Amino acid sequence: MQEGVASEACSLAGTLGLGNLVVLYDNNKIQIDGPTSLAFNEDVKKRFEAYGWEVHEVENGDTDFRSIHDSIDQAKDHGRQEGINKPQFISVRTTIGYGSKVAGQNKAHGTPLGDAEIVRMKEQWGFDPNKKFYMPDQVEKYYQRTAHQRSQEVRKAWNDLFTRYSKQFPSEFKELNDHFLPIKPASGSPIPTFIGQPPTLPSGLLDRLPHYKQEDKAEATRKSSETVFTALSKELPTIIGGAADVLGSTLATVKGSPYIKAGDYTGRNIAFGVREHAMFAIANGIAAFNPSLIPYVSTFLVFAPYGLGAIRIAAISHLRVIYVLTHDSIGVGEDGPTHQPIETLTQLRSLPNINVIRPADGNETTGAYFAAVDGFAHPTALALSRQALPQLPGSKAINVKKGAYVIFDTASPKEGETIDGQVEQEQKWSKILTIISTGSEVHLSIAAAQLLSKSDAQLRVRVVSAPCLELFREQPAEYRSQVLGTQSGPHRQPSLILSVEAGDTISWYEFAHVTMGIDTFGVSAPDKEVYKHFGFTPEGIAEKAKKALKVFEGANVADLVKLRI
Amino acid sequence: MQEGVASEACSLAGTLGLGNLVVLYDNNKIQIDGPTSLAFNEDVKKRFEAYGWEVHEVENGDTDFRSIHDSIDQAKDHGRQEGINKPQFISVRTTIGYGSKVAGQNKAHGTPLGDAEIVRMKEQWGFDPNKKFYMPDQVEKYYQRTAHQRSQEVRKAWNDLFTRYSKQFPSEFKELNDHFLPIKPASGSPIPTFIGQPPTLPSGLLDRLPHYKQEDKAEATRKSSETVFTALSKELPTIIGGAADVLGSTLATVKGSPYIKAGDYTGRNIAFGVREHAMFAIANGIAAFNPSLIPYVSTFLVFAPYGLGAIRIAAISHLRVIYVLTHDSIGVGEDGPTHQPIETLTQLRSLPNINVIRPADGNETTGAYFAAVDGFAHPTALALSRQALPQLPGSKAINVKKGAYVIFDTASPKEGETIDGQVEQEQKWSKILTIISTGSEVHLSIAAAQLLSKSDAQLRVRVVSAPCLELFREQPAEYRSQVLGTQSGPHRQPSLILSVEAGDTISWYEFAHVTMGIDTFGVSAPDKEVYKHFGFTPEGIAEKAKKALKVFEGANVADLVKLRI
Repeated sequence: MQEGVASEACSLAGTLGLGNLVVLYDNNKIQIDGPTSLAFNEDVKKRFEAYGWEVHEVENGDTDFRSIHDSIDQAKDHGRQEGINKPQFISVRTTIGYGSKVAGQNKAHGTPLGDAEIVRMKEQWGFDPNKKFYMPDQVEKYYQRTAHQRSQEVRKAWNDLFTRYSKQFPSEFKELNDHFLPIKPASGSPIPTFIGQPPTLPSGLLDRLPHYKQEDKAEATRKSSETVFTALSKELPTIIGGAADVLGSTLATVKGSPYIKAGDYTGRNIAFGVREHAMFAIANGIAAFNPSLIPYVSTFLVFAPYGLGAIRIAAISHLRVIYVLTHDSIGVGEDGPTHQPIETLTQLRSLPNINVIRPADGNETTGAYFAAVDGFAHPTALALSRQALPQLPGSKAINVKKGAYVIFDTASPKEGETIDGQVEQEQKWSKILTIISTGSEVHLSIAAAQLLSKSDAQLRVRVVSAPCLELFREQPAEYRSQVLGTQSGPHRQPSLILSVEAGDTISWYEFAHVTMGIDTFGVSAPDKEVYKHFGFTPEGIAEKAKKALKVFEGANVADLVKLRI
Repeated sequence: MQEGVASEACSLAGTLGLGNLVVLYDNNKIQIDGPTSLAFNEDVKKRFEAYGWEVHEVENGDTDFRSIHDSIDQAKDHGRQEGINKPQFISVRTTIGYGSKVAGQNKAHGTPLGDAEIVRMKEQWGFDPNKKFYMPDQVEKYYQRTAHQRSQEVRKAWNDLFTRYSKQFPSEFKELNDHFLPIKPASGSPIPTFIGQPPTLPSGLLDRLPHYKQEDKAEATRKSSETVFTALSKELPTIIGGAADVLGSTLATVKGSPYIKAGDYTGRNIAFGVREHAMFAIANGIAAFNPSLIPYVSTFLVFAPYGLGAIRIAAISHLRVIYVLTHDSIGVGEDGPTHQPIETLTQLRSLPNINVIRPADGNETTGAYFAAVDGFAHPTALALSRQALPQLPGSKAINVKKGAYVIFDTASPKEGETIDGQVEQEQKWSKILTIISTGSEVHLSIAAAQLLSKSDAQLRVRVVSAPCLELFREQPAEYRSQVLGTQSGPHRQPSLILSVEAGDTISWYEFAHVTMGIDTFGVSAPDKEVYKHFGFTPEGIAEKAKKALKVFEGANVADLVKLRI
């Protein structure tokens, strides 16, 4: 009732007229630190009516169970009536810890009652005081008689209906089976089940998504995202979602489908309003309701922290939510530091069980979406650029799943040739530098590698594109070692590794000996100016690389693959 | 109007009866993605009345300036009337982009009008279309006649009052000068100024705060925090704040002072309710209003992300806010993963311009608070334990300011003796291990060091307590090198460094060759069981250390101090 996320969600529920929603409010006037009046003096009924809800009140929730029951029935009836479209709110006045010695007190919230008081209360309510964790027979019988019987009737009616449906609408029934959790009509299995893995993705899906060639025009990955997402949302009708009032910037929408609105829920788009936290929480609800559904939600990367609590819940609950987060760096224009995420990638990466993917061009954007829908048991955050990025010659959608791969090498080895391959034997490089980079900094790193190579014939420079550090960590040590260049060559030490990302450096020490990033807040200027200011130009990166090579000349570099022992 | 943080703050403003608050709502029915009706169908007047506000409405905010003016006057009058105590809300119906060709459209929000349209609009409103960035004389004259003159009168009246006050109440006047920004009565400087640094802390403050001896009883740092905070809040009357309904757990309160409530604002405690985001945002407002004020706000560490947007604003705006964040790890008991922060320390550390301090015992808690109040130009997050921790023999409050320091050494060097000192020459250690740890894991690391030392006479183990990585980074390279043991000794390689913290490892690769942490979500069990499960026991840490020593035996270890080049 006090948390902002509830206000956001309830306001939207009112706007969308969610008549199937019935909320019971345990109005006991107590919170952990004391009476709610210390911090909460609202007219709750009026507030929910202002949101467009219908409000019911139960005066005595301690003992008048009939009124609670009737209110729920009434709420369900009203909410489902044609044309009303109002979510239903039932405020039930109760006493916290009713019947115990701490009744009506805030300590009833968390303090254990103690054994003696539990015995006394069991006696008071007619339970056997000597039994613990047991259910009286009469309770079981009651539920057998009511809930169990009723559910069997409801289940039978549903199964009958569904069997008729499967015969009358065979193609629609097939579509349901193709895209939703295995659903079996009554003749097969006793009950339709929503437990288990959702159906596998349509075969050949990745091939049918957009792929880019080097000569295709440069575009922002948010723009590539629009193209890829449009293709994907045609392939997967279970994709639904929307934006927190920045759709014109994030560009992620199910084209051709209307917005969901009060009384018409056929659309696949939701206008969440400026409500990031509720947006992320609603996405959790959609994914949890049925794991076949694929909710996506979009805003600027810098605003992801406004709903971080809900992102944590998605990760901890293994929910397949896709966060489309654009304006992912300092390339956002004159909005300045408030709109330039510095720490946000690290904040998301630090969360267990989420993949954070920052694609470098169109192909990697395709790979990022494919990894997101294919990753059933976790959320995925996509970090996308506002500014245009060139299509990179070495980029491959399928490589995103490996987390990181060599995208450029001044030694130009042939396909599949590794750092220890023939090329190196012939050319006798004395130094190798590996630049590991993501997103909008990969093409700059490649240009820097070319500059460096020209200025020092003994130096071989490799560029690793690392769209997803979490997926890279999951690769075998051998692959990681190959990508990072941690083996020594015949004439040289292992590769020195420099990370290049226009954000804070904290998440990079695991993968690089030297980091290039931004550990202060941003600045306000056109994007090219800001990039220049922080040294993220081919020349700036090359300069940093030269400095790193000099500092580490002849020094030992650690084998970073060993770090996670 | 849609963001949850506004709901939280406005609800609290109503409860606290903030009659001095007047909010103007630019009710133009348009948001970035289209008409607000897509996502927002509230009866705003009713909602604010439900919060306990008085609501005024202006029908035509486009041209009826008199009504806006009168509403503001009326709101100010009503809000200040004795006994009303209602914040004032003025809903002004306007047309976005009024008078332009995009009037009433969402593109008026962000799309530039273009030169031709700007010229046309200037002509339409009677401005010289050829002038840019200029202010007509008549505007300046108007403000000279009104605002400027009025402010001079108000200022003179204030100065006169203040001069009389300084004479009539000399000791109260002195107190104001001691604890607030330099305030000069009318006779000295023309105006009292709130610009500049707040007064320096009372001399000898750190000495007067609680200090602990090894024989003092073990206690949770949240408990030490209660003691230290109580002492500090007596010394510094400008400390004000409160908790998000978990005061019984965070224990941070100004003892002896009441809660602020409607009509009585003499208290220094605020019951924020379950409203983390607004709590952090209100703290920002207090710090920004007058930098002499020191707002503190408390909740569980795992809930800090609920208000991360406001923490970011504190950091970017250089506000001295203190976040008292308890239950800082897996030692929180049966609440389980939802209440066990894993990623949260890294999420805070990744933010520029904030100090994150995790003290290991009572002395470090004193040092943490001292660093927090002494750090004028940035916020500080304190991460405090729920479980009891022993008072450590080598801990020192003043060392917190260095960020990290050697707290234990199996070679027991004398005070001030470094890793390259006499001790090492005599004893000829062949291996050195440095365990760098924070908070509740420091005493476990010391016990592990003792175990390791017993099992291998050639091995010297040092333990570094690192309460604040940000402050450590600011130290000279020589000090950091000394603490981390990065120099080689006469008979050995540089120290291998192992980090030990019961949270995600991402922030540790910068400071350690091998990390021990938790990169999954937590588990639900009593705290000692959870610690054991994740290996955070003296035996578990020793085992990890042995493994690390074996993996890196004879291998190169990087000089980590070189990383930030």
